[in-house]
Amino acid sequence: MIGSPEVKCGLCDATKGNIVFSSQKWRVVMVEDKHYPGFCRVIWNEHISEMTDLSDQDRNLIMQIVWKVEQVIRDIMGSHKINLASLGNMVPHVHWHIIPRYTDDPHFPNPIWSPLDIEESDVTEKLKLLPRLKLELETRLCNFDQSHS
Amino acid sequence: MIGSPEVKCGLCDATKGNIVFSSQKWRVVMVEDKHYPGFCRVIWNEHISEMTDLSDQDRNLIMQIVWKVEQVIRDIMGSHKINLASLGNMVPHVHWHIIPRYTDDPHFPNPIWSPLDIEESDVTEKLKLLPRLKLELETRLCNFDQSHS
Repeated sequence: MIGSPEVKCGLCDATKGNIVFSSQKWRVVMVEDKHYPGFCRVIWNEHISEMTDLSDQDRNLIMQIVWKVEQVIRDIMGSHKINLASLGNMVPHVHWHIIPRYTDDPHFPNPIWSPLDIEESDVTEKLKLLPRLKLELETRLCNFDQSHS
Repeated sequence: MIGSPEVKCGLCDATKGNIVFSSQKWRVVMVEDKHYPGFCRVIWNEHISEMTDLSDQDRNLIMQIVWKVEQVIRDIMGSHKINLASLGNMVPHVHWHIIPRYTDDPHFPNPIWSPLDIEESDVTEKLKLLPRLKLELETRLCNFDQSHS
């Protein structure tokens, strides 16, 4: 249930964050992370803990969105690698991190959760790409959503 | 190409590791991690960098294996949460980490790649479950493989 008062979970409020596209069952937000411009999250709207708690159909649906977002990030951001993760230890509500990695990002080649090696990295050029990323995500996710509803 | 001499990649050698089940296109290994008994990896045999480099069919196939492995780990290991990740920054060859998290594991609730809080955690009881995990993985993956080939 979206925003159900019974569930106290930061991800149950489907209005929070920099929302790129919102569908009935899922939404995509752009994450404001100073080291990782282009970082996006795909969030399942219903409060479900694990991927294997979803039906086959819904599991397939959310992964289709993850692949769409991964492809748009690759097309626009010039990332070196994509990292995908569904963790949810603090917030057990299904959500996927889609993280563009750059060879000069402050954790590369380690995971972004590892200790920080360098305090600042220069992401000026990447920040300029964000409006284009947002537009491309909106367009392609809207197209996907219309063709699957 | 499996074990192709042109590709120097640790994951291209499909004979390495504690293999639980090996199919034509993928394999599953159990990871020896003293803090995370039950940690498994699903490895795509071909040297492919990103999930969006796979065909729709192959991408769906590897995710079906990930869900199978997640379900078996949940059924056997009594984990509190499952973490899924496809990173590949050091080894750009598609592989999925399926990590059972325990409330008393040394990183919980942080990602396993974050700085270690406690040097040792008691996993004695979890280690006893590993033979059963291996048997259950072998059985269910074999059944899946036979029904999809």
